[in-house]
Amino acid sequence: MNTVDLIAKKRDGGTLSREEIEFWIAGTVDGTIPEYQSSALLMAIRLQGMDDEEAAMLTDVMAHSGSMFTPDDLGGFTVDKHSTGGVGDTTTLVLIPLLAAAGLTVGKLSGRALGHTGGTIDKLESIPGFRTDLPRDRFLQLVNETKLALADHTEDMVPADRILYELRDVTATVDSLPLIVASIMSKKIAGGAQAIVIDVKTGSGAFLPSLEASRKLAESLASIGSKLGRVMATLITDMSQPLGRMVGNALEVREAIDTLRGEGPTDLARLCCELGAELLLFSCISESRDGAIEHLDRLLRDGSALDKFRELVVNQDGNPAVIDDQYLLPRAARRVEARAEQAGVVRSLDALAIGRAANLLGAGRFTKEDSIDPAVGVELICKIGDRVEKNGLLAALHVNDETNLDTACQMVESAYEIDPTASEIVPPELVVDRIVSDW
Amino acid sequence: MNTVDLIAKKRDGGTLSREEIEFWIAGTVDGTIPEYQSSALLMAIRLQGMDDEEAAMLTDVMAHSGSMFTPDDLGGFTVDKHSTGGVGDTTTLVLIPLLAAAGLTVGKLSGRALGHTGGTIDKLESIPGFRTDLPRDRFLQLVNETKLALADHTEDMVPADRILYELRDVTATVDSLPLIVASIMSKKIAGGAQAIVIDVKTGSGAFLPSLEASRKLAESLASIGSKLGRVMATLITDMSQPLGRMVGNALEVREAIDTLRGEGPTDLARLCCELGAELLLFSCISESRDGAIEHLDRLLRDGSALDKFRELVVNQDGNPAVIDDQYLLPRAARRVEARAEQAGVVRSLDALAIGRAANLLGAGRFTKEDSIDPAVGVELICKIGDRVEKNGLLAALHVNDETNLDTACQMVESAYEIDPTASEIVPPELVVDRIVSDW
Repeated sequence: MNTVDLIAKKRDGGTLSREEIEFWIAGTVDGTIPEYQSSALLMAIRLQGMDDEEAAMLTDVMAHSGSMFTPDDLGGFTVDKHSTGGVGDTTTLVLIPLLAAAGLTVGKLSGRALGHTGGTIDKLESIPGFRTDLPRDRFLQLVNETKLALADHTEDMVPADRILYELRDVTATVDSLPLIVASIMSKKIAGGAQAIVIDVKTGSGAFLPSLEASRKLAESLASIGSKLGRVMATLITDMSQPLGRMVGNALEVREAIDTLRGEGPTDLARLCCELGAELLLFSCISESRDGAIEHLDRLLRDGSALDKFRELVVNQDGNPAVIDDQYLLPRAARRVEARAEQAGVVRSLDALAIGRAANLLGAGRFTKEDSIDPAVGVELICKIGDRVEKNGLLAALHVNDETNLDTACQMVESAYEIDPTASEIVPPELVVDRIVSDW
Repeated sequence: MNTVDLIAKKRDGGTLSREEIEFWIAGTVDGTIPEYQSSALLMAIRLQGMDDEEAAMLTDVMAHSGSMFTPDDLGGFTVDKHSTGGVGDTTTLVLIPLLAAAGLTVGKLSGRALGHTGGTIDKLESIPGFRTDLPRDRFLQLVNETKLALADHTEDMVPADRILYELRDVTATVDSLPLIVASIMSKKIAGGAQAIVIDVKTGSGAFLPSLEASRKLAESLASIGSKLGRVMATLITDMSQPLGRMVGNALEVREAIDTLRGEGPTDLARLCCELGAELLLFSCISESRDGAIEHLDRLLRDGSALDKFRELVVNQDGNPAVIDDQYLLPRAARRVEARAEQAGVVRSLDALAIGRAANLLGAGRFTKEDSIDPAVGVELICKIGDRVEKNGLLAALHVNDETNLDTACQMVESAYEIDPTASEIVPPELVVDRIVSDW
């Protein structure tokens, strides 16, 4: 097989065969296909697309490019969850102990994203002592014995995704639907989940802000997962305003603990139950969506989910005392208040602006080499539909490095649109759409 | 400026500014922009195109990426000629002494193409002693004193084209109209010609076989040359059958010498006069096309063009005795005849098949590392419109290495389509179309 012919085929809008995709991915991983050829092929894929069958093959071949977990390795009914990323998206921290408490097997692999705040790994590492670099044996032992472990992606899993993602990042080929889907799903497939729920965010704080783009991504994820034998549910959920009230790493851990105790913000708790319900239905633990949501809600209120979280923290060398004493989590030096210029009802709250403000304060990474400050971030006092008085408190910025404080504060205040005359404003629907595969 | 933004702009169908093109080409030449970014951009250009203004800027920036010649460096009315390449295309060897004999300045830079036979440089090097690696000073001295020199492209001229061409070759981005035009014209611009004639071949032996594609290329070359202040004539000429009767390096030198003596094949002589006439019109040496053709034809018949060729050979250390004794040129060990299976009139003669047969015999290069055998090739006894008897002589293969002889012989025989019933077949028109810039 000849790499130039393969590039030319995609350039001319052709469909790559499984053999051709295997040739490309093998050559990418072992270095026999140089980066300049892969990047030309990536651009051809970005501009000519891939059909679902082709994207499913790419996903599968990428998943098999390194070591994998099978459902048998993990035991039980294995599930996984993925979010396309948003602002204040604390769902994973709540959902994984909640699902394990419900009896499902959650062997979760996660990463350190570039973003407004860190990824799930970064957030959990704000718990003193918490380890995410688990050796494979320890990870499997924990999952088999306790149904729950969370670890950093290791180098030997899905190497094709790591290599291609780095190349896409510097060649303007990130925003290709089939490449996005293959990147997400190859890691889920390699992780060994039988059933997968995906939270596709839509709105200003989402990776794909438009509903149309979010729906296309959701449909493609559902289709490719199903083609590869996974049971799939994909929810399109609102990210026009941040989820919950905390945006920042330790701040989100605090909020997750509150939610696991049944005392968190309603939207966050509700979304976790909605996402989890799909997996309970798939596993036949529940028979109806309403029943599943009720069941999960009970596990949040009766302490079962929090117990599971405590077990996770202990098993991965974290200090469980943070659960009962939040002052043991990293805390910022200052809390700076953002206030309303006029009285009224919050009509909109720009998630992207809040995310950028948190990032400016040091909560996220701009480049891979940046370190994050776990303590800093933004705490939202008012959200859409809340009434505020003139000079009333809108939000609080948790600050250590004050370099960008003024800009961040300005961004937070401008993120709020206050309607002085409205008597009531209804917050946006949390779950915008739901695509569930037949099984 | 950010390379990823620049790639994204072209990916989305945008038009690159001069500043952006300068940034890319400078980074390509000094190595600060890695190949994987250039190749993604090349694929984006291949798929999204470039408008003429943009392609003209790219051409100009590439031309300026290394050292250049100006018309003043060369002196007189400087002209150049380019052919998009065909089979048996001996025009350059005839045309450059012919134009110099007419009083124009021809400082020609040429290359060693991959192709069915070598490039002009390779052909001239079949003359014992002939040197094409002239130092800049010697090249300029010869052009100034004699109006004629021919040298190999040096490393320091148009380095951007060399780098990008190598990358295009391995990333399936060769066949992009703006990139083809920029590659051709940047070298012409850097060579210092004021007026340029381009021979765009069409038909089976051409780089672009379809007339539609050839016409687009011709129009784009004319447009970009004009935008950069060059006087341009572009002729679309027939390459459905080979030009002249010789295909091979030393064989074509023999044929060029015959033509310069006024004894060559009519089609080759005619095409040289047609191409040269455009430059005579531009230089105001002639007032009408018919007058210019007549003038050039006279220079072929009265020995002036041959004298100029002799001067070129002497000045560049070649043995001028080859002109009077063709046995001093490299000759193949065997001459193998290809004969007709039936009597009739030649209806078609596939130029591509003849080119491939010559290449198989060793006349051309398949990869850059291949060496060529100057002696071998194909001599066409019959061409379109010629009558042949059953078992009559169609062509002769000049052979050294017999490895592929049977295949090559078969290819030559199959290249001829013989019509057993036709009484007369008219050969195709040599000049299919002509695009001349206003000046």
